[in-house]
Amino acid sequence: MLKPSEDQEFYELASPTLLPKASGFLWNESMMIHVNCRGYTVAQFMQPEPAKYSHAPNLEAKTFMQPEQPYYAHHPGRFVYVKDEETGEIFSAPYEPVRVPADQYTFAVGKSRVAWKVEFGGIALEMSLTLPKEEPMELWRIRVKNLSPAKRKLSIYPYFTVGYMSWMNQSGEYNEALQSIVCSSVTPYQKYQDYDKIKHFRDKTFLIPDRPAASWEVNQEAFEGEGGIMRPSALDREELARGDARYETPVAVLQYRIALEPGQEEAYRFIFGPARDEEQIAGIKAGYFGGTNAGGDDGFVLAEREYDSYIREGGGCMEIATPDPELDNFVNHWLPRQMYYHGQTNRLTTDPQTRNYLQDNMGMSYIKPQTAREAFLTALSQQEPSGAMPDGIILHPEAELKYINQVPHTDHCVWLPICLSTYLDETNDYSLLEEQVPYAGGQEAGSVFEHVHRAMQWLIRDRDERGLNYINQGDWCDPMNMVGYQGKGVSGWLTIATAYAFNVWADICERSGQAGAAEEYRLAAQATNEVVNEYLWDGEWYARGITDAGVVFGVSADREGRIFINPQGWSLLSGAADGEKREKLMQAVREQLETPYGVEKLAPSYTAMREDVGRVTQKHPGSAENGAVYNHAAAFYIYGLYSVGEKDDAYRLLRKMIPGPDLDDIVRRGQLPVFVPNYYRGAYRQFPRTAGRSSHLFNTGTAPWIYRCLIDGLFGLQGCPEGLRIRPQLPSHWNEAKVTRDFRGAKIRIEMTREAGVREAEVYADGAPMADGILRDVRPGAEYRVLVKLPFVN
Amino acid sequence: MLKPSEDQEFYELASPTLLPKASGFLWNESMMIHVNCRGYTVAQFMQPEPAKYSHAPNLEAKTFMQPEQPYYAHHPGRFVYVKDEETGEIFSAPYEPVRVPADQYTFAVGKSRVAWKVEFGGIALEMSLTLPKEEPMELWRIRVKNLSPAKRKLSIYPYFTVGYMSWMNQSGEYNEALQSIVCSSVTPYQKYQDYDKIKHFRDKTFLIPDRPAASWEVNQEAFEGEGGIMRPSALDREELARGDARYETPVAVLQYRIALEPGQEEAYRFIFGPARDEEQIAGIKAGYFGGTNAGGDDGFVLAEREYDSYIREGGGCMEIATPDPELDNFVNHWLPRQMYYHGQTNRLTTDPQTRNYLQDNMGMSYIKPQTAREAFLTALSQQEPSGAMPDGIILHPEAELKYINQVPHTDHCVWLPICLSTYLDETNDYSLLEEQVPYAGGQEAGSVFEHVHRAMQWLIRDRDERGLNYINQGDWCDPMNMVGYQGKGVSGWLTIATAYAFNVWADICERSGQAGAAEEYRLAAQATNEVVNEYLWDGEWYARGITDAGVVFGVSADREGRIFINPQGWSLLSGAADGEKREKLMQAVREQLETPYGVEKLAPSYTAMREDVGRVTQKHPGSAENGAVYNHAAAFYIYGLYSVGEKDDAYRLLRKMIPGPDLDDIVRRGQLPVFVPNYYRGAYRQFPRTAGRSSHLFNTGTAPWIYRCLIDGLFGLQGCPEGLRIRPQLPSHWNEAKVTRDFRGAKIRIEMTREAGVREAEVYADGAPMADGILRDVRPGAEYRVLVKLPFVN
Repeated sequence: MLKPSEDQEFYELASPTLLPKASGFLWNESMMIHVNCRGYTVAQFMQPEPAKYSHAPNLEAKTFMQPEQPYYAHHPGRFVYVKDEETGEIFSAPYEPVRVPADQYTFAVGKSRVAWKVEFGGIALEMSLTLPKEEPMELWRIRVKNLSPAKRKLSIYPYFTVGYMSWMNQSGEYNEALQSIVCSSVTPYQKYQDYDKIKHFRDKTFLIPDRPAASWEVNQEAFEGEGGIMRPSALDREELARGDARYETPVAVLQYRIALEPGQEEAYRFIFGPARDEEQIAGIKAGYFGGTNAGGDDGFVLAEREYDSYIREGGGCMEIATPDPELDNFVNHWLPRQMYYHGQTNRLTTDPQTRNYLQDNMGMSYIKPQTAREAFLTALSQQEPSGAMPDGIILHPEAELKYINQVPHTDHCVWLPICLSTYLDETNDYSLLEEQVPYAGGQEAGSVFEHVHRAMQWLIRDRDERGLNYINQGDWCDPMNMVGYQGKGVSGWLTIATAYAFNVWADICERSGQAGAAEEYRLAAQATNEVVNEYLWDGEWYARGITDAGVVFGVSADREGRIFINPQGWSLLSGAADGEKREKLMQAVREQLETPYGVEKLAPSYTAMREDVGRVTQKHPGSAENGAVYNHAAAFYIYGLYSVGEKDDAYRLLRKMIPGPDLDDIVRRGQLPVFVPNYYRGAYRQFPRTAGRSSHLFNTGTAPWIYRCLIDGLFGLQGCPEGLRIRPQLPSHWNEAKVTRDFRGAKIRIEMTREAGVREAEVYADGAPMADGILRDVRPGAEYRVLVKLPFVN
Repeated sequence: MLKPSEDQEFYELASPTLLPKASGFLWNESMMIHVNCRGYTVAQFMQPEPAKYSHAPNLEAKTFMQPEQPYYAHHPGRFVYVKDEETGEIFSAPYEPVRVPADQYTFAVGKSRVAWKVEFGGIALEMSLTLPKEEPMELWRIRVKNLSPAKRKLSIYPYFTVGYMSWMNQSGEYNEALQSIVCSSVTPYQKYQDYDKIKHFRDKTFLIPDRPAASWEVNQEAFEGEGGIMRPSALDREELARGDARYETPVAVLQYRIALEPGQEEAYRFIFGPARDEEQIAGIKAGYFGGTNAGGDDGFVLAEREYDSYIREGGGCMEIATPDPELDNFVNHWLPRQMYYHGQTNRLTTDPQTRNYLQDNMGMSYIKPQTAREAFLTALSQQEPSGAMPDGIILHPEAELKYINQVPHTDHCVWLPICLSTYLDETNDYSLLEEQVPYAGGQEAGSVFEHVHRAMQWLIRDRDERGLNYINQGDWCDPMNMVGYQGKGVSGWLTIATAYAFNVWADICERSGQAGAAEEYRLAAQATNEVVNEYLWDGEWYARGITDAGVVFGVSADREGRIFINPQGWSLLSGAADGEKREKLMQAVREQLETPYGVEKLAPSYTAMREDVGRVTQKHPGSAENGAVYNHAAAFYIYGLYSVGEKDDAYRLLRKMIPGPDLDDIVRRGQLPVFVPNYYRGAYRQFPRTAGRSSHLFNTGTAPWIYRCLIDGLFGLQGCPEGLRIRPQLPSHWNEAKVTRDFRGAKIRIEMTREAGVREAEVYADGAPMADGILRDVRPGAEYRVLVKLPFVN
């Protein structure tokens, strides 16, 4: 029913009903498109804020990308209706809106292309979508083939949703000169000051076919008639009515009438997207369909090829072959792609949350370290002279802090050393720390080193008399906006995280020759860990925080929200938890938070408002932060497990982030293993029916942290100033693994194998043993072979 | 196909496809519901801003009520699926979502009730909706009758859309204790400061049936299955699956299984609406279905009755019988109801635009003058000490100026005398002018007289060196936000309107014994009219304004926006236009603005942006202000025509505001004549296909102005200090009319008739001739008979 394609380039699903919400996504430098297996689609492009050219049937709220979006009959989509002109029979590809079960069905999600192959009653229909590299537009191919033994007379109706473009002004018509459908709108505004912003918007939606159609319809209501979108009345006619839309909801439907001999096929190409004006559309048409180069390729083909190259540039820095083929497929093909998406698009926002921006670029350190470097400098240039990091990083001169970025959170500083360390591990580019960067306001400047120092000092200052960090209106990933808004409540997690950040920064200081600073931060970390153990250890695990009113929460006395994952995972990283505490908290996590679909964020989920905790308790139980298997937080727990050598727990939980391999698990999650979602529905012990369900939201800091778990933890192939430190933590039941690691310009082929008689890991580089397991003097362009002999585990 | 019911209490439509957007609306003191003939529904309630309990399937934008809203398959609705348990056949009432054509169909819009009667294959299904007077909830009755000669086994599935309640938290379940469906959500918020606002919201949606159902479904996706909303898979089962919704889109569907003998029927009642918590729902259930009074009526029945009385209180102040029965029906039944709606609900906003608030309460002067009086005082209490009126009137302590009320408009002051004059005419309550009212800020106070005086002085001051009124970012009903934002552009209409306002105020001053002030304002009006004629007369009509750059627009040299109705109509009122100018401008209006569906706002509609004019040019041609038959503006033109005795042009145009009587006209407009919409689509000469189509938006200042045209103009039954001035302007082709006028507590029965030999109107009160046509000394409780003899017109 579902599997990687033979060439591993696609992940394939053979039914539109098995995982009705299965999807893939594509992006380029100006847009993102999320494509559902049944034909539903969400596309957004930047101008500079996210905008749409294919709209819902009503006036939609503008909002950030949301998880678990419902589909409904008129949800925007890209469909092809097919009518047998002799029998009048109608079906649609890929499945919506007619919902005729296909004889054969494949939904294939590729890295630079999404495609369908469907067969109905002797007709094969192929659809595929890719993007150009830069411009916001969709490149579609549709192929129809007669598989039946008789000649077939067909009408093919490609259908592209335009939808309710604007309440102010919308229309659509077939433009004879362009032989294209052009729909027009005006973005509503009310203050004249906003006019300058909207006047250059791409407010038109176009559909350019590669050849003229026999007929068309641009009026949604006229197209549907009383038949509705499932059985449009317009298909009863020999030809479409060539209608227009005048303040009516537009649609872009074309009709092609063909007669196909047995085995004969016909192929079409279409471009669908937004444009400023007809002139731009004419330019696109000329550029893509206007002529071919010496090689016989037109602009459309060249754009497809350029996009494919662009996406391939975003490969990861390792290729793995392990006893777990699904993990291999996910890590070799999909995980780097998801990191690359984050790094390239900044989640289609002009003001990414600071912590997201830093972590997304931590991931980019593995793919395009230069991009990561620039991003860190951008972020630091917006740091306050006090050391405080803003809630969001402004990436566009017209951007402003929106949504949650208007709510003060106190954790942004901790991410600086944590994310920088990966960049430094991967590149050894410690010169970054010497870069001079201004502070916000432009009055002061300082080195990156000083910037991070100020951030660490800010964290030390922003504490109560006990030494616990204030939470204000929230910190990372469970923004409890009413714990500390009065200025007294503190965050257990954040306090622990500062201890970890201090230790990480101490390591960096030491490696930069700043031994004094290193010592200072080590002591600060130690002192913080002591405070943590004094005020937050609840006997079996760490508490989540203390409210303005002095109530400790996330503790055994709580009926709901009794245990949170974040303080537990980070206490492994910070060193707060000694051996005994580790065992206890791991046991608590296993018993209370672990589920078949991963580790939950907190448990039991809040089912009612707790006013001294706030926003997290208002979220649906098991969704988003309120008890979901929140993969980002789970990844930190796993990273913590690796940091203390708990390789089997770590692998077991890591594996639960990827749907499958068994079909039941994939069906339960409802998602193909082509990205890791921000969460799987949790509250497993409270609401088992829905637990495990994917959010289908691919915006998440999880991806780089899984990758980092693999690099630093499972395969133990982390960079260090001397070179590559090789220290694998294969799960006990793996007897071997192979990794090809791209590292500082070199290619390193590592074989790991358990051998009888080996008592401790033995590392050999090109045959020579390395006592400390560090591959030194890695030269760009060179290739190395590393053998790691591992003991069998008892 | 459509007609008033025999008792005139309903307007009936006999097809769901003839006018697919035909609708009725109901309101009470906390909500409004707009019900479409096919079952689609929009409901809003106030807490304090407009909120929903029946949502779209996606996250909808929060916005003001908009015209020409499209419907789509999953648009919120109230439906009843019916399944024949023996044949498996399914239909739905009233028409959506299954769309099986009925054998018989009636959609009946009443003043306090909307009802359907439909028959399919021997089953009659009746649905009807009313509201309680105060609470936001829907009271539904559903009756099923077996009309066939055999016993029928049926499943009846009432379906109520709940929809996408909240991205933060939503769920739904069947509450066994309440035997009701209860869906829960949390209104999203991000700043803790907003929590106090949302915590008491009615965030739950309930469906309370009058008896337990056989089964239920609360999960939209589970209900639909692959069949979709048109043919839900759940109906294939014997019983619904009793599912719940956990962060899934909820729905409220019940199943009743019945066997009906021939002729037998079964009746059900339901309550659907929002609630804070289960306790409140339990209270509603107990109150409505919990028991009966001595008369055998339960709370449900009593609420229906109370609501009907409440609506009947909102009757108008005249009943007419003329040669135009459609006009009679509209004026006697629907027009006062629409005025009452505006006066009671303030258009479901907490910050009505000042001009709307004043005009809506001008209408209320005919229905509940005490309400109007209080509203005028409220509005004046928010006037600036400078005399400027704010852009919106705040009606709730938490309200703030929203949307267009944040954009400065310069016309609000002119409406004060104009709207007050109707209140004074109707009530003779000149004591209002002596009321002391504070100014905004509370530092100063003054009499109403002084308030209006300051408003008039503000208008005199807010002018350029020529004496033309600045437009800033807009004035009334064609807010051209870029004409004058630099502080130089002026409004032709507003300058003319100030002249009219001065004259109206001069009359009021004179009647209040302020002869000096009266003279002052008469002179100001005269001077203004002279300036108007000097700078704005274009040769055949008046220009609309002059831009910041000094460009006169709305003139013959313009290709688009060549003529605007507003300056023309108001020049008749202000006295700017002498006889020759009147003839010319009326001719221009007939030639360029009059259409079969009324007078357009401007012509030709702008089809592209004109940057020195702004927002109006960005609206769709023929929609809203850009060339629509904007009834509110048209009403002023008609009022102007009556003011200069042009009774035949006036009647012809007035009549075009009401759909019908012929079917073609009603079909073209797509609306039943149960309200006057804010516009009919215009651009008749540019886009004839869509011209005439109703906006279906019943929020409009048109209603009170039609009424005032009838009172002051057509029937000439306007109040004055002495009593009732009787001066009809029947159209030439009417030979008679009867009016019963409720006036200052008296009932006055007027018969108008043309008689041979009469040369000028002769008025007789209880038989006695009245030379000046004024019925004096009108005594509350008394009844008068007036005869008006009119000449035949040559």
